[in-house]
Formats: sequence, C-alpha cells, structure tokens
Amino acid sequence: MSNPTAAILIIGNEILSGRTQDVNVNFLAKRLAARGIQLSEVRVVPDIAHRIINAVNELRASYDMLFTTGGIGPTHDDITSECVAEAFGVPWEPHAETFAIMEKAMPAGAFNSARQRMATMPRGAVPIPNKISVAPGFSIGNVHVMAGVPRIMQSMYDALEPSLPEGTPIAMRAVYGMGVMEGAIAAGLSAIQDKFADVDLGSYPFRRETSGGVAIVAKGTDMARLEQAIAEATALIASHGIDPVQGEPA
Amino acid sequence: MSNPTAAILIIGNEILSGRTQDVNVNFLAKRLAARGIQLSEVRVVPDIAHRIINAVNELRASYDMLFTTGGIGPTHDDITSECVAEAFGVPWEPHAETFAIMEKAMPAGAFNSARQRMATMPRGAVPIPNKISVAPGFSIGNVHVMAGVPRIMQSMYDALEPSLPEGTPIAMRAVYGMGVMEGAIAAGLSAIQDKFADVDLGSYPFRRETSGGVAIVAKGTDMARLEQAIAEATALIASHGIDPVQGEPA
Repeated sequence: MSNPTAAILIIGNEILSGRTQDVNVNFLAKRLAARGIQLSEVRVVPDIAHRIINAVNELRASYDMLFTTGGIGPTHDDITSECVAEAFGVPWEPHAETFAIMEKAMPAGAFNSARQRMATMPRGAVPIPNKISVAPGFSIGNVHVMAGVPRIMQSMYDALEPSLPEGTPIAMRAVYGMGVMEGAIAAGLSAIQDKFADVDLGSYPFRRETSGGVAIVAKGTDMARLEQAIAEATALIASHGIDPVQGEPA
Repeated sequence: MSNPTAAILIIGNEILSGRTQDVNVNFLAKRLAARGIQLSEVRVVPDIAHRIINAVNELRASYDMLFTTGGIGPTHDDITSECVAEAFGVPWEPHAETFAIMEKAMPAGAFNSARQRMATMPRGAVPIPNKISVAPGFSIGNVHVMAGVPRIMQSMYDALEPSLPEGTPIAMRAVYGMGVMEGAIAAGLSAIQDKFADVDLGSYPFRRETSGGVAIVAKGTDMARLEQAIAEATALIASHGIDPVQGEPA
C-alpha cells in the first residue's frame, strides 16, 4: 500500500486521568481511511512541554503527516502551540491576520492577553478555521494542530481536509459468524490471509446481548480482492455448519 | 509526585482503521489513578511485529510498568505474545500449566494448534487469569499483556491489580462555571496554578444541550491542597458574577 501515512498526537491530561473518553481518534481514523490516508500510530502524552516537543518531532519525521488535538485554548495548561514552534525551531509570534480577526470579533477589552495567545503561532503557520469558535488551529509543515473539543476539532478537520494528500480509499468488508469460535477457524483464516497478501484480514470476537461470534474483516484498497477474500471467509464459516451473516448482526 | 508510572500500548488495527472505538484506555486510566499509578503515555500501533517490539521496548524502559491490550487470540493477526518474547530476548514456548488447563477445558480435538498458541508464552511469563475465557494473559518483568476485548481485559486487570505497586491515589476535584468563557478567567487561573505547584489544574470547556461553560479540574495526591485550589477557582468564577457549580452539571 503506497497510501500517505499519518499519526495522531493527543495532548491530553484529561485522557490520561480517565476524566474524558477520547472520541477524536475514532473520528479521524474513519475520515482518514475514507481519504486513503493510512493512520499508522496514535500517541497520548500529558501537557508537559518536553513530552509534546519530542513526540511532535518523532512523529512528524516518521509519517507523512501528523495531526495533534488538544492544548490550544487560552489557559495556562494550553501549551501545544508554543511547543510546536519549539519543535520546528521557529519563533512563536502573533499571527497578524488572526490577531485582527479575533480582536474584531470580540467586545472591546475582551481580547485579553490569554486570548491573544490563541492568535500566537509558530512563524510560517497557516490558520485552520472552524465554524464554532473564532480561534483557529494551524498547519505548519506536515503538522496540523487542532482543538481537543470534538466538535471544534471536527470542524477544523472539515476545513483542512481538501488540502490533505489523497490516497486510494481504504475500504472494509466484513462477514460475521454467529457462535463461531476464533480458535476453530484460525487455521483456515490464516490460509486465506496467505493467499491475499494485499488484503489485511482481521478476526475480532464480538458479543451481543444474547449471542456472540467472530467478525472477519478485510481491509484494503482493492475492492475486488476484498470481496474475494470475504467470499472465502464466508465459505470457511459455512464449512463449520454456520450461516454467515453479511451485515453487522444486531 | 513520586507515584509509580505506567504506559498503555494498544495493539490494534481495528482502532487505527476506525472500526472500533477504544474503551480500554479510559477503564485503565481510572483504575490506575485510583491505585496511585500515574498513567504517563498511551500508544496505538498496528499488528506489525517490529512496531510492537520497538514500542514494548521503548515503553517498558521509560515507565515503571507497561500494559498491553490486544493481539493475544488464536488467529494469524494475534502476534503480541511472540513479539513480547522477542522484545525480551527470550524463547516463546508452551507454558506447561496453561497448556494443561486449556487442554482439559476443551472437548477432545478442540485444543488445536491455533488455540495452543494461546498457551504459548515468553519463557518466565506468569499467566493472568480471567473469568470469561480459559486463555490467560501474562506478565513478564514489568510488562502486563492483556486481551483487547474489554470485558476480558477488565477481568484480567481485576486479577492483576493486587500484584501491582501502589502509590498515593490520584484524586480529582472540579468546579463548573456555566456560561464562563475560558479566556475570561485564564489569567486568574494561571495565578492559582502558580500558587499550587503540587496540584495539576486543568481547564476544560464543556457543552450541554442548552448551555455550556468551563470545568476547572484539580488533580493530585494531597486532598487538602485540591480543596484549597478548587476553593480559589470557585471564588474566581464567582468574581465574574457567575454561580459556581460544585457537582457535574446536567
């Protein structure tokens, strides 16, 4: 697969403390897959400068692009922006256009020094607007810095997406075997995976209220190959005396 | 804070593809905080051997303990166990006791080679039992290898927890300001953080159906200091003409 690759860096004490359930990874994972971008790593680090700087530098060097979420508000614990400037070795300075837009949008006196920090960016950054808040995220190089609040992050991603590189969309097909035990079909499944090296074949036990089974998921960029791999997995399930289910079972 | 530190490594193509919403981090984050273990990093990597091996070695060296979730089932995409053996440089071999338990628990012929892989562990590993499945996780050194299926993982953590080191439980106190804008209280909040260096003070905008505001969250191991910091944050919110809310607002 020669699709572009991506990482997500979550700057989030609130995720590490368990106070907040992250939902940004799942949103971005789906949208990136649809655009043909391979999400290859996720990291969560605390709001500590050297941890953020090191993670930004490692991940932007390892993947074609990096998305960060969190830490771009006006409070003392919002340090992502200056950390990204330090990671890139560029000054962190007022972004004139953003400064003007934010000042204009607020009542006189409200654009205080805390809010001015949200108009301060690494030199060379390009703002990422959003429909919820006047304060933008920004892109610098291959790093895209977004809010942690999900609906603001989502709006920023909507604005950013058209500028991202495109790959072949990563499609998924699945077949479900109710009552199937993974251990019973593992050998057969492994043989199918060996035949379809270009398909990523996964096996996931699942449980519903009154039943359970295994989901066989084929992932890849060649839809015909996915269909063939799933046809073989379907036959494998059937060979164990079970009716395969093509859609997500209730 | 001199509490023991921990990292979580999620081995999970299904998280990176967006097919599955992770819930294991949130469960472990809360339980670790209650035991006084500081969760310091989370990573998600795909089911690729060198990625798993490198992440295991980096994280077990950087933190007091590492929890992994995922990739210990019987199918071809379950490679965590042999990767951990390789990370530790020890043989991956049948675990005699687990082998006997699993063989006995299954009908004749059902303990096939795929299932035997679940009884195969790095030399020196200690099984982590669970109440859902006969196949265990295992601990080796400071690395605890658990299932990806949440209820199995949770049962493994229950079994493992008494053997983990204990720190001072990390407590949280919060106060909510409905209708408060972060930018309006940022300077005052920063001053409070400066006074309470031993308290981790976070500011999180939130939104409910008909309203929104800011949550000020104090986290730390000294309850008296948390209470003092939250009392000052409460006064700060009140000084902006807003009635602070002590419990989670609806």
